[in-house]
Amino acid sequence: MRIYTFDTTLRDGTQGEAVSFTVEDKLVIAQKLDELGIDYIEGGWPGSNPKDKEFFARARGMRFKHARITAFGATRMAKYPVDRDPSVLSLVEAGTPVISVFGKSWDLHTQRALRITEEQNLELILDTVKFLKDHGKEVIYDAEHFFDGYNSNASFALRTLEAAVKGGADVLCLCDTNGGAMPTRVAEVVAEVRRRFDGVIGIHPHNDSDVGVANAIVAVEQGATHVQGCLNGYGERCGNANLASVIANLELKLGHTTVGREKLASLAAVARLIAELANLPLRNEQPYVGRSAFAHKGGVHVSAVLRDSATYEHIRPELVGNRQRVLLSDLSGRGNILYKLKEHGLEDRLTDETRRELLERIKHLEFQGYELEAAEGTFELLVREALHPGLQPFELVSFEVATKMSPQRGSHSTATVTLKAQDGVHSATASGHGPVHALDLCLRQCLSSLYPSIKDVRLVDYKVRVLDSKKGTAAKVRVLVEWTDHKRSWTTVGVSDNVIEASWFALTDAIRLELMRLLERDENIAKAVEDYCWGV
Amino acid sequence: MRIYTFDTTLRDGTQGEAVSFTVEDKLVIAQKLDELGIDYIEGGWPGSNPKDKEFFARARGMRFKHARITAFGATRMAKYPVDRDPSVLSLVEAGTPVISVFGKSWDLHTQRALRITEEQNLELILDTVKFLKDHGKEVIYDAEHFFDGYNSNASFALRTLEAAVKGGADVLCLCDTNGGAMPTRVAEVVAEVRRRFDGVIGIHPHNDSDVGVANAIVAVEQGATHVQGCLNGYGERCGNANLASVIANLELKLGHTTVGREKLASLAAVARLIAELANLPLRNEQPYVGRSAFAHKGGVHVSAVLRDSATYEHIRPELVGNRQRVLLSDLSGRGNILYKLKEHGLEDRLTDETRRELLERIKHLEFQGYELEAAEGTFELLVREALHPGLQPFELVSFEVATKMSPQRGSHSTATVTLKAQDGVHSATASGHGPVHALDLCLRQCLSSLYPSIKDVRLVDYKVRVLDSKKGTAAKVRVLVEWTDHKRSWTTVGVSDNVIEASWFALTDAIRLELMRLLERDENIAKAVEDYCWGV
Repeated sequence: MRIYTFDTTLRDGTQGEAVSFTVEDKLVIAQKLDELGIDYIEGGWPGSNPKDKEFFARARGMRFKHARITAFGATRMAKYPVDRDPSVLSLVEAGTPVISVFGKSWDLHTQRALRITEEQNLELILDTVKFLKDHGKEVIYDAEHFFDGYNSNASFALRTLEAAVKGGADVLCLCDTNGGAMPTRVAEVVAEVRRRFDGVIGIHPHNDSDVGVANAIVAVEQGATHVQGCLNGYGERCGNANLASVIANLELKLGHTTVGREKLASLAAVARLIAELANLPLRNEQPYVGRSAFAHKGGVHVSAVLRDSATYEHIRPELVGNRQRVLLSDLSGRGNILYKLKEHGLEDRLTDETRRELLERIKHLEFQGYELEAAEGTFELLVREALHPGLQPFELVSFEVATKMSPQRGSHSTATVTLKAQDGVHSATASGHGPVHALDLCLRQCLSSLYPSIKDVRLVDYKVRVLDSKKGTAAKVRVLVEWTDHKRSWTTVGVSDNVIEASWFALTDAIRLELMRLLERDENIAKAVEDYCWGV
Repeated sequence: MRIYTFDTTLRDGTQGEAVSFTVEDKLVIAQKLDELGIDYIEGGWPGSNPKDKEFFARARGMRFKHARITAFGATRMAKYPVDRDPSVLSLVEAGTPVISVFGKSWDLHTQRALRITEEQNLELILDTVKFLKDHGKEVIYDAEHFFDGYNSNASFALRTLEAAVKGGADVLCLCDTNGGAMPTRVAEVVAEVRRRFDGVIGIHPHNDSDVGVANAIVAVEQGATHVQGCLNGYGERCGNANLASVIANLELKLGHTTVGREKLASLAAVARLIAELANLPLRNEQPYVGRSAFAHKGGVHVSAVLRDSATYEHIRPELVGNRQRVLLSDLSGRGNILYKLKEHGLEDRLTDETRRELLERIKHLEFQGYELEAAEGTFELLVREALHPGLQPFELVSFEVATKMSPQRGSHSTATVTLKAQDGVHSATASGHGPVHALDLCLRQCLSSLYPSIKDVRLVDYKVRVLDSKKGTAAKVRVLVEWTDHKRSWTTVGVSDNVIEASWFALTDAIRLELMRLLERDENIAKAVEDYCWGV
């Protein structure tokens, strides 16, 4: 069956504690959601803040291939007639083809929050929906707190839906606003609403009880055909139902059609991009789309998966644009490490001794706190070094970096780096915004005449974590840096009790890797290693 | 009804990509789970690696108040009689009162992975369970891939359970090993198994379809009384069902008894501690126990929650040891910022002008990239400075920090700091493991004779993030540092394009805050601000 998807990342999603979008971000996200094939994109509440108002103004000038942009707002206030309510008028002014408007379904709320009678509440709903329909809008009626309201006073809750129907609502969307409902109860209530009302029934679950996705699924099983959520599950408190998981479950587990199988294959990429725009890392363990979603660590599982992937994978990862990964770790034995190398015909190029050395080096680094699973760049470098012993693009002689600061003159950093490369000793001094920037400038000055292509390599993300917090500011830190050369991206890692040294390791690994790739031009190695990670 | 909880963080949890525990970590976690009132703690697979073997050896010498330690393993291999199978023997040797042993329920697996007949498979199960029962163990039979097996060949799958029953199994635990089952199907299958078998039925869901917790809940609704999962939902791929959410749902939503209401109030603290030991931050948005689980940002919600918390909270946060928080942000208007100050009677001490200034300063900092929501220490400092204009424990004159490195001599950092404090100018020079350590040592040298108590303040966590990645190594970074004085903890934030400067801001904010607290001894302010955060 065709199930309609409604993404509210740009409205409910922004209520998440760590989520904050610029108008620019919102426009890019809307376009990506459109490309993914989402049916409705809720852009914001035009009456609540200037940012959302600007979003709608600019969205009006954009072309969407498929999605219908939706503005969100409340039913009119009791003190205004509907055509004089500023918030309702701002909804019309937003100029969207679709409006979602929420009203109260919970008797308690009507009495305590709005302090109006049941009759008045029904009028607010009817008036507002009708007014918006009269302006030619498609109207989605969001029944706020529907499940709590139904539990408190079912007939009251059902009468609010009748008012919305009388006003002409196109969709009756049942919201579990507080996220407290259990799936079995959601199924019962949706079934009851389905029996009583024709037309499209929607579901809007939150994840406060960790069952948001399940609540969306059971609602569809009981006849809902419109599902609201946020890609990656952003949203206030514990988030909205994760629309990425909902879409994958509906398409692959229940045989429904949402974005369609072809666009489903871009799900992981869109999820990742939105996470980047939100400046929040995509959770590795996020179902379907996370880096770890099809990653195998235990030795037993790895050997079975290599024989038949269905043994430990619930779907083929390619269906959602993800991929299988085999991890390195003390649980896995040697099999995993060499699995990809073998697959690409590289294993034979390692002698028994270099293979043993490589494994020892990896173990030793992991013991020190390196996380090679998260740093396929550093791992690729280790493999290339094992395959080409003696090939060294450069060696450090020494560096020094100083940072000075005073309230009057602010801060600046100056570095001096001395390296040995092919033809002799190179030295450079440079000032930068910070110590890593200054070291980076020096490194490039030293090497750019020898290797011009390193100018394409640049930092994308830089993260630092303390490893052993008991030691305070003297603790060991791990620096993870993501790099790109505009064609692919990779991550390198450095560990030290000195954050500058750890950064230097990650920085030089990235440059060294780029140079090793150049020097050998052996694409098979890169491909073998890339298979560990989720390439860009 | 009494539902038994089985935590497998120490076994299945360690299969998670980012999860890695030392034996020491495992022992501490086991004790914490015991204190929380978990019934079974699965400690590892003694036959698979030396770390797990050591865990059981050391656990035997420990006293657990309530929990029964469980060892995990497979049914015997086809090539060994059960009393000669090394893996089965290592299970007995682990010396635990309980053993969970998994066997194959999926005809496909038996044929492809084990390459044995159905009869042989039934023998492996029967023999192994019986052997372990004969050794006086409580035996939990884990029916691996039960739901996939049931879908493929129901009578085959049911016969494997019969074999386990014949062997004397105490629990028949149905595993959704690949995490692909939908809740409605899980409910049907569990109901069918319940109809056919007496005794305890268990459920072991994975989260690959984002419905792990729901699958545990619907299984209990159909008669399962034993639930397996991991606190915080660690585990391979997308993790196991999050036992923290399962426990809270069973106790608070379905009226069952697991750890009991009293211990439930320590759920958030235990979840946080385990996250710390795992060196993984507890997800803010984690249901029930995360920092954001009861955090309110939108203005409408905040004003309603302040009137009646049930309006936007599905449970009282105290029931799981969590707390309500009201967030600062551009969505919320001025109400939130002053809400706690008012509650503690501090608002009146701010003049209209200082209040406006405080709000302006907060807005300006957030615009620069400060995240005050995540840095209540810096926020408390801003409030204290607004309440006590002119009170300045110290002022920076200048600092300088240099880091040198060469392959022969490694790296070291030396700093010089000059400050103005009460009685004049203070200067100090110190060497440290890294630049932040060296600056910290200097700062303390300068101030310790004036303020001896600052020696109690120490760093717990240090995190760095790039804010605008387009600028490469010259990008602006945000440094978040968590501090403790052994009584409470707080986080400070610094933003700059120089990581050293940003670290300096976060470092001095922490020390400055401690000194402001000392100088004013005004505990109300601290309490008001602490209410934003989730105190230790």
